[in-house]
Amino acid sequence: MRHLFKRTFIPILLSGLAALPSLAQQQPSLLGFGTDAAKKQLDLEATFDKQLQANNLRDWMKRMTAFPHQLGSPYGLNNALFLRDKLASWGFDARLDTVHVLFPTPKVRILELTEPTKFKASLTEKPLKEDATSAQTKDVLPPYHAFSANGDVTAELVFVNYGVPDDYEELAKLGVDVKGKIVIAKYGGSWRGIKPKVAYEHGAIGCIIYSDPKEDGYFQGDVYPKGAFKNESGVQRGSVVDLPLAPGDPLTNGFVADATHKRLSVEEAPAMMKIPVLPISYGDALPLLKALGGQIAPATWRGALPITYHVGPGPAKVHLKLEFNFDIVPCYNVIATLKGSEFPDQWVIRGNHHDAWVFGAADPVSGAVAELEEARALGELVKTGWKPKRTIVYCWWDGEEPGLLGSTEWVEKYQSILKEKAVVYLNSDGNGRGYLSAGGSHTLEKFINQVGRDVIDPEKGTSVIDRLRSRTILNGSPTAKQEARTRTDLRIGALGSGSDYTPFIQHLGIASLNVGYGGEDAGGDYHSIFDSYDHYTRFKDGDFAYGVALAKTLGRSVLRFANADVLPFDFSNFANTVQLYTSEVKKELEAARAKAEDHNKSLAEGRYEAASDPKDPFVKPMPLSVAPYLNFAPLDNALVALENSAKAFASASSKFSALPADKLKELNEILYKTERKLIHADGLPRRPWYRHQIYAPGFYTGYGVKTLPMIREAIEQRNWKEAEEGILRVSGVLEGFVGEVERASGVGR
Amino acid sequence: MRHLFKRTFIPILLSGLAALPSLAQQQPSLLGFGTDAAKKQLDLEATFDKQLQANNLRDWMKRMTAFPHQLGSPYGLNNALFLRDKLASWGFDARLDTVHVLFPTPKVRILELTEPTKFKASLTEKPLKEDATSAQTKDVLPPYHAFSANGDVTAELVFVNYGVPDDYEELAKLGVDVKGKIVIAKYGGSWRGIKPKVAYEHGAIGCIIYSDPKEDGYFQGDVYPKGAFKNESGVQRGSVVDLPLAPGDPLTNGFVADATHKRLSVEEAPAMMKIPVLPISYGDALPLLKALGGQIAPATWRGALPITYHVGPGPAKVHLKLEFNFDIVPCYNVIATLKGSEFPDQWVIRGNHHDAWVFGAADPVSGAVAELEEARALGELVKTGWKPKRTIVYCWWDGEEPGLLGSTEWVEKYQSILKEKAVVYLNSDGNGRGYLSAGGSHTLEKFINQVGRDVIDPEKGTSVIDRLRSRTILNGSPTAKQEARTRTDLRIGALGSGSDYTPFIQHLGIASLNVGYGGEDAGGDYHSIFDSYDHYTRFKDGDFAYGVALAKTLGRSVLRFANADVLPFDFSNFANTVQLYTSEVKKELEAARAKAEDHNKSLAEGRYEAASDPKDPFVKPMPLSVAPYLNFAPLDNALVALENSAKAFASASSKFSALPADKLKELNEILYKTERKLIHADGLPRRPWYRHQIYAPGFYTGYGVKTLPMIREAIEQRNWKEAEEGILRVSGVLEGFVGEVERASGVGR
Repeated sequence: MRHLFKRTFIPILLSGLAALPSLAQQQPSLLGFGTDAAKKQLDLEATFDKQLQANNLRDWMKRMTAFPHQLGSPYGLNNALFLRDKLASWGFDARLDTVHVLFPTPKVRILELTEPTKFKASLTEKPLKEDATSAQTKDVLPPYHAFSANGDVTAELVFVNYGVPDDYEELAKLGVDVKGKIVIAKYGGSWRGIKPKVAYEHGAIGCIIYSDPKEDGYFQGDVYPKGAFKNESGVQRGSVVDLPLAPGDPLTNGFVADATHKRLSVEEAPAMMKIPVLPISYGDALPLLKALGGQIAPATWRGALPITYHVGPGPAKVHLKLEFNFDIVPCYNVIATLKGSEFPDQWVIRGNHHDAWVFGAADPVSGAVAELEEARALGELVKTGWKPKRTIVYCWWDGEEPGLLGSTEWVEKYQSILKEKAVVYLNSDGNGRGYLSAGGSHTLEKFINQVGRDVIDPEKGTSVIDRLRSRTILNGSPTAKQEARTRTDLRIGALGSGSDYTPFIQHLGIASLNVGYGGEDAGGDYHSIFDSYDHYTRFKDGDFAYGVALAKTLGRSVLRFANADVLPFDFSNFANTVQLYTSEVKKELEAARAKAEDHNKSLAEGRYEAASDPKDPFVKPMPLSVAPYLNFAPLDNALVALENSAKAFASASSKFSALPADKLKELNEILYKTERKLIHADGLPRRPWYRHQIYAPGFYTGYGVKTLPMIREAIEQRNWKEAEEGILRVSGVLEGFVGEVERASGVGR
Repeated sequence: MRHLFKRTFIPILLSGLAALPSLAQQQPSLLGFGTDAAKKQLDLEATFDKQLQANNLRDWMKRMTAFPHQLGSPYGLNNALFLRDKLASWGFDARLDTVHVLFPTPKVRILELTEPTKFKASLTEKPLKEDATSAQTKDVLPPYHAFSANGDVTAELVFVNYGVPDDYEELAKLGVDVKGKIVIAKYGGSWRGIKPKVAYEHGAIGCIIYSDPKEDGYFQGDVYPKGAFKNESGVQRGSVVDLPLAPGDPLTNGFVADATHKRLSVEEAPAMMKIPVLPISYGDALPLLKALGGQIAPATWRGALPITYHVGPGPAKVHLKLEFNFDIVPCYNVIATLKGSEFPDQWVIRGNHHDAWVFGAADPVSGAVAELEEARALGELVKTGWKPKRTIVYCWWDGEEPGLLGSTEWVEKYQSILKEKAVVYLNSDGNGRGYLSAGGSHTLEKFINQVGRDVIDPEKGTSVIDRLRSRTILNGSPTAKQEARTRTDLRIGALGSGSDYTPFIQHLGIASLNVGYGGEDAGGDYHSIFDSYDHYTRFKDGDFAYGVALAKTLGRSVLRFANADVLPFDFSNFANTVQLYTSEVKKELEAARAKAEDHNKSLAEGRYEAASDPKDPFVKPMPLSVAPYLNFAPLDNALVALENSAKAFASASSKFSALPADKLKELNEILYKTERKLIHADGLPRRPWYRHQIYAPGFYTGYGVKTLPMIREAIEQRNWKEAEEGILRVSGVLEGFVGEVERASGVGR
């Protein structure tokens, strides 16, 4: 369920990259290692790098993508066993860790236009002779949305753009209501699960999601097989479980089913979608959209189909019938361990999922085989006698696609152990050709910048971090450009959801990173039958050079965490980041106030009515609640304390190398548990599973992160009371965090 | 050649429109009139308003659009005689003022795709049973571009987006050269004549311009006849004479042919296009664009055709053959005069063209019939014994469409008289339903705001200026919104070119206004066979209510100028506007400097190479010339003097009502000639016909205005020396202007 490539970094200039040859000559510093240890570590990493072979990635991708391998499929188990056996052969303690989860698959899928003309949607992807696996039918899941409700509905159609809350505000202005209607939304603008959720909230009884060629088809480039992009039969499958409420099996949110913890029924599961939802191709969508009447869709809603986009409702009427098998299936996580020689109870965890929607060459196999090559190279190091100081846990998750099922259940199952032992979680998912993309805990921002400095871009010979800096200097926003020239570290994005880091960081507060390459490899294969070996090798990382770069990036990350004397956390960038988020939410509040004042003034003056076109329906807008001034003082004070503690830690750190072993152990335990302090036991309002108070997936964006979520979402929802509570909540967790950073600075003093 | 509707106003708030009832009760002030005179004038205007009948507009439109009436056509002469006779019957001294001009019409038009497949473009618009005149063929000019060169060329095709200079910079980045190729550009982004001019500058040997459905077709709304928008056979005709070089007959730029002034040959005329150019429909463009290979067009270049847009060159190869009759034809301007009773040598000039490309219901008949109804209503006032103090000259221009031929030749013919006598020129062109749009000399900004205050919007009952204010408050840019709430007068746009005001303001420095209504009447009829009575009455101002509003707006303007004691010029808004333009060009200079510095730094650091995708061609960019600091002091000093003189004039104006008649006459002569001071005898660099130093059509935008053109265009072309000369030039004309304003303040002192 890798989310499409986004630049999550914003970049620097160390003032004159021309001066960089020095880097090659002088020994770079290494966070967490003294000078001698750093040299030894870098030699080890160089040895590790030398083990990595692109051909392994190619062979394993071909093998793993030969047949459909979704959750619950025979080939999914086959792949899991293949992974386990490989890992065992390389010296890992490898096993399947199996949980059982709900996995709905389709029995009946019917979509037809009944008025004003008849049309029956094909709902199938056409095999291509240029794509070797596309003609397979055995075990192939047809296009559908996992966790859709059963349903048999007939109603007028309404086009709702992306189907996010703003779009319904726009519809209200047009006087269009979706109550009792079936909506058709296009992919994009949010995670897909938001669309039926918001449609349901507005009274719709069914939801169709299609890929418009504007975002995902011929508008972007030549279509498959001539080019990489989505052709008229391609469909994006996917989950529509209410992920921003909680990932994992929706029958067991927050726990794993056992004798005392019973599954909910499908009907009572809050994260189940409440209406039928179906994804379709633009080939199938065209006749439906063409049959719509009513007003012209707002200009920004219109896609690239050769029609005038109307919103309806009707005269197009559609019949949507969906039935699912709601089966409980085994979910095979593959877990492989190298025990730590000094700190066996400190776990460095690395993961990528192995299940796909169909063949899944890009998503997830491109990342899974890079991870496998990392593990093989570690095995080679072990053969030479090397042992990690800390325990290394390599994971390949099953059931990620339907809703992070494997990883979430595993995290919930072992949560008490993980709270104690998990040092860091390093995730990857689909990988491609291009630029480094990294997101995660900002206590790791400096760390991943250092790793990126030490990995060479396979196309350009410069470091991957410098290539990203170049890109940001050229293509970034004005602020990003400016920072890319002046800030020491490139900024990393924050994590919302969309891959298996979610339960680690969001539920337990385990510092996490998500890393991949991309940006030179766009395509329309995502979650379609055409995400195949043939497509991947023609249009993505065909020589697997960036698969190897990913293995280097995360392999070196694992090695540094496994061996560091002092765990490579840094608090100054984190403090700077939270300051930035705070200024953002303050600006959002000011903007909300200004908007409401301006709107209410215009309303009182009759501006809307005066400016409206009498030939269009006029719906008088409602006044907006004007934001009060909120007390940000607790947060501002916490930020000062945070910055001071980060500075104190930085100056204390020069003396850490002199600490005796027991003090170092105490220090490291404090350090990797600092992220736990960003968790609040109550979770976020109305979604207690999400506990992190700095990062969360947006309630109405899905994957997309909302930072300082309680404050920011309350402002967006104009819930001023909750925003003020959010300020206190965040201030509280930051104070707890500061306490730990201060404690770390004081170790051995 | 009415340019498509653009908001040219930026808006105010008199603080609380709720408080406006007072306006209805209290006597509003009237620029140029004392209290008693104002009351009398407003009574007169109310009487004028009462004469206006929408049905006249309807009947006359039906009559004037019954047959094609382009320049040189039999029905064009028929319409001119109809206008003349009507005007004479209403008491005007009316006549045809005929000049002879070059008017090329097509003999041969062939466009075919020769490789990789064969396709012959139809180059015809399909008649529709829903459009009564569309099946006519007699005298109908097929789609073509007037002043295209003859040519018979075959070459590979290149897609150049809008075909403006920035697009060729983008092509250079892609490594694509158009030398020896035929380019295909879409309409939009500039005036059409810019496209072949820039193509020719880059070495292309032919140019095709098509209407993409994104800008002008189904993307915008339902197509004709279901809706108003361009269908797959519709084509936009038009002129491609080099209008920013000079309008009018390109064989006689700046003069009228006679015994001593000889016409150039077609071959030696600098404003003639040098390569063959042809407009086509999107139906004809689709096979050509589909056949293009090469790189994918940049995202912002892609339109709404259901294809992947490629730039080429080739494999598409096209054959374009064009031949024209280069005939000299009579051009019938209709001129009708009401002699002034007190100041017969002060002329208030009002104009709209009468020639069309085909039937021209919207363009220009909708404006022409409103003007005719104004004239009829004036005739009614004359019948009651009223006489204008100043001479009123009503004009209907011929040959506007091919390049403002009628108005330009008339202005050139009578230039010495006009320099002395012309008080103001008030223009309209096509008119539609919606909001007031006004542009022109900023010495008239306050005046047109007052007129707009006194005209009631037919749909809303509020004043048209307040309705525009409401629209700007809701939809304007942040700056425009802000000003609409706080500035007394709404800003009016500056005039570039695109209609008959051009020779008046740009060549002679006669203060001008261009006024129309629109924004609720979009359509795809522009310059096509479908700009018909049927289309207009279904989709535009079907009840002619805004035709009447236009007649009220410009009729009242004529009456005020004809009767004012003191001509209603104001200098404070002009001073404010030139200050704004100055700060804009300063910002442009700063932005150009910052861009060049950033670019050159990135270039030196190897950023472009590092960030580039090795699978795309990489063209190393050239360094940019860094803007030096320029001496703006002369301009800043002139602006201070201008502001002071405007203030002094405003305070002197309270005493003008006490002036004796001869002093008033002296004052008024100074006032209406102030705009002449903004003219410089040398004109603009490389285009001496354009003499105004504050406003000009952009050399690379066409209609689109460039304010402070000599400075601004020099900065845009990175010609720093010329920019500095421009500062001195503008400062000089402003000083001359200030001198006249000071002289006006001192009259009778």
